[in-house]
Amino acid sequence: MRITTISTLVLAGSVLFTGALGASSVRNEPIQPIEPAEVTDPAKVQLGKKLFFEPRLSRSGFISCNSCHNLSRGGSDNLRTSIGHNWQEGPINSPTVLNSSLNLAQFWDGRAETLQEQAGGPIENPMEMAFTHELAVEVLASIPGYVELFVDVYGTDQIDIDMVTEAIAAFEETLVTPNSRFDYWLRGDDDVLTAEELAGYQLFKSSGCVACHNGPNAGGTSFQRMGVVEPYQTDNPAEGRVAVTGKDADRFSFKVPSLRNVELTYPYFHDGAADTLEEAVDIMGRLQLGRVYTEEETAQIVAFLKTLTGEQPRIQLPILPPSGPTTPRPQPFD
Amino acid sequence: MRITTISTLVLAGSVLFTGALGASSVRNEPIQPIEPAEVTDPAKVQLGKKLFFEPRLSRSGFISCNSCHNLSRGGSDNLRTSIGHNWQEGPINSPTVLNSSLNLAQFWDGRAETLQEQAGGPIENPMEMAFTHELAVEVLASIPGYVELFVDVYGTDQIDIDMVTEAIAAFEETLVTPNSRFDYWLRGDDDVLTAEELAGYQLFKSSGCVACHNGPNAGGTSFQRMGVVEPYQTDNPAEGRVAVTGKDADRFSFKVPSLRNVELTYPYFHDGAADTLEEAVDIMGRLQLGRVYTEEETAQIVAFLKTLTGEQPRIQLPILPPSGPTTPRPQPFD
Repeated sequence: MRITTISTLVLAGSVLFTGALGASSVRNEPIQPIEPAEVTDPAKVQLGKKLFFEPRLSRSGFISCNSCHNLSRGGSDNLRTSIGHNWQEGPINSPTVLNSSLNLAQFWDGRAETLQEQAGGPIENPMEMAFTHELAVEVLASIPGYVELFVDVYGTDQIDIDMVTEAIAAFEETLVTPNSRFDYWLRGDDDVLTAEELAGYQLFKSSGCVACHNGPNAGGTSFQRMGVVEPYQTDNPAEGRVAVTGKDADRFSFKVPSLRNVELTYPYFHDGAADTLEEAVDIMGRLQLGRVYTEEETAQIVAFLKTLTGEQPRIQLPILPPSGPTTPRPQPFD
Repeated sequence: MRITTISTLVLAGSVLFTGALGASSVRNEPIQPIEPAEVTDPAKVQLGKKLFFEPRLSRSGFISCNSCHNLSRGGSDNLRTSIGHNWQEGPINSPTVLNSSLNLAQFWDGRAETLQEQAGGPIENPMEMAFTHELAVEVLASIPGYVELFVDVYGTDQIDIDMVTEAIAAFEETLVTPNSRFDYWLRGDDDVLTAEELAGYQLFKSSGCVACHNGPNAGGTSFQRMGVVEPYQTDNPAEGRVAVTGKDADRFSFKVPSLRNVELTYPYFHDGAADTLEEAVDIMGRLQLGRVYTEEETAQIVAFLKTLTGEQPRIQLPILPPSGPTTPRPQPFD
């Protein structure tokens, strides 16, 4: 009898589980819920986490991935453009790393197809971490604690940059933010959104925002021209997708950014020119849709956007292995 | 019978516990074990943790306490001298924040008597975070998520700098590193140290290192002249304790740094000139004690020093509350 009871409970439990997570009960909406991360190789993820927080991947020994994709701050640095090696001013706003695995490509112009490809970029960019892949690998290979971890994960002590970037990407794939209030609503909870938030979402759909900001990431599914109805005024020289395709039609076309956690990832746009969500919504309405939202409408859309803040990844700060006797010492002021 | 058995076990457990932690069973040695942190006000500690990781306490919005006292790296930045606002080169090596509550004073010259007093320094130092206390408080007071936390902890929304620095200090007081292998030995475990490590400790005592590096922090109990038998050669202009006391006798006198976690806190000395423990031990022997250690002796002392690496604080990365509509935006490039 006891065993039967337990079986019944387990069965009920799995039905409920399917009900909560299965596609069948999700509302038919253009934005879909974020799924929790599935970690298939925890050792690789742990290695990637250390590398994500590792300032020794930079020439100065001071800048890590987390410097500009700060996991305390929505995976961004909340600066218009980032601070790079020797306090150089970066050319473009740092996109959030959160949910970036759900984007069709990486960087504002999509020049990296994968997270792994992206991860190699800043390390050797003279305006960012200002290192080289060769020196980064040399540093890691000189640190006994890292060699041990690479042996565990890759079965060899011959570290190469592909292992480094693959491990970083494996960690980044875990940086998803499920269970936002909007996701609860998508899964059928009618009471979790206020009337204002729901009105904002309806307006977001009916006025056309959702044409670009769709999918689980509420963005990241296409490249679109910045300034459709009116041109976008900026001093920022970035020209977007044309740098990758060489096609004139792609000038000022950028990857549509995710709106997930957008409350945390200010300032907005590729030049970081909009400090507040109100400002960003107003500009998007006028430039992309030819629509001037009233103050009340803007407030509704902003209220909806704040429901997209999900559970932030719970990160236990990694302890980085100390440099070895032959590790090259950083020379930040040379 | 069952209950009796459990009681007996519990009793045996508490006796063992007392045995492990009680003063009675600790060896009579000049270095004493680090005790675990006792958190009396968890809300204040949590607030202090956010503030410790808060780049908005700097003018650039980029530098936090954790930038130079990185809890992934032994509470230090592993640079000779630190990188400050606008990539300025700091004047002195950043001391570790770990176990700093056990020091007689803060900074290399001891100019701050308490951790709270120390915490205010870098915020308004033009070469470090380059902000002012007034602006830092203005920023925090404009962030609704912080106001809520200050109300919880201090019962008022009128934030002042003393609350800010007190909360940071409360967090820093938790950053102790108990349970190093040396501490297990101090508590009576004879098998936890190798013969080489034990020989290193005996030599550390017999040759006089322990005259300065004593107490639970293996240092931090006094100010001492750098270069007793021979003068210390350095380009670094710091003159040490004289800056505080005005006494000529205190020229080149510095707070004796802790040797706890010294394996992680390279490079060494107030100018960060010694990259390795071998180099540091050799220089200390000659300059402070007039003794040239053999290679074997140096190796023994280094082996002992590495037994002082304790359990690093387990830090869950805080999620920082987003800026509010009136929060001043950082202008890192102005």
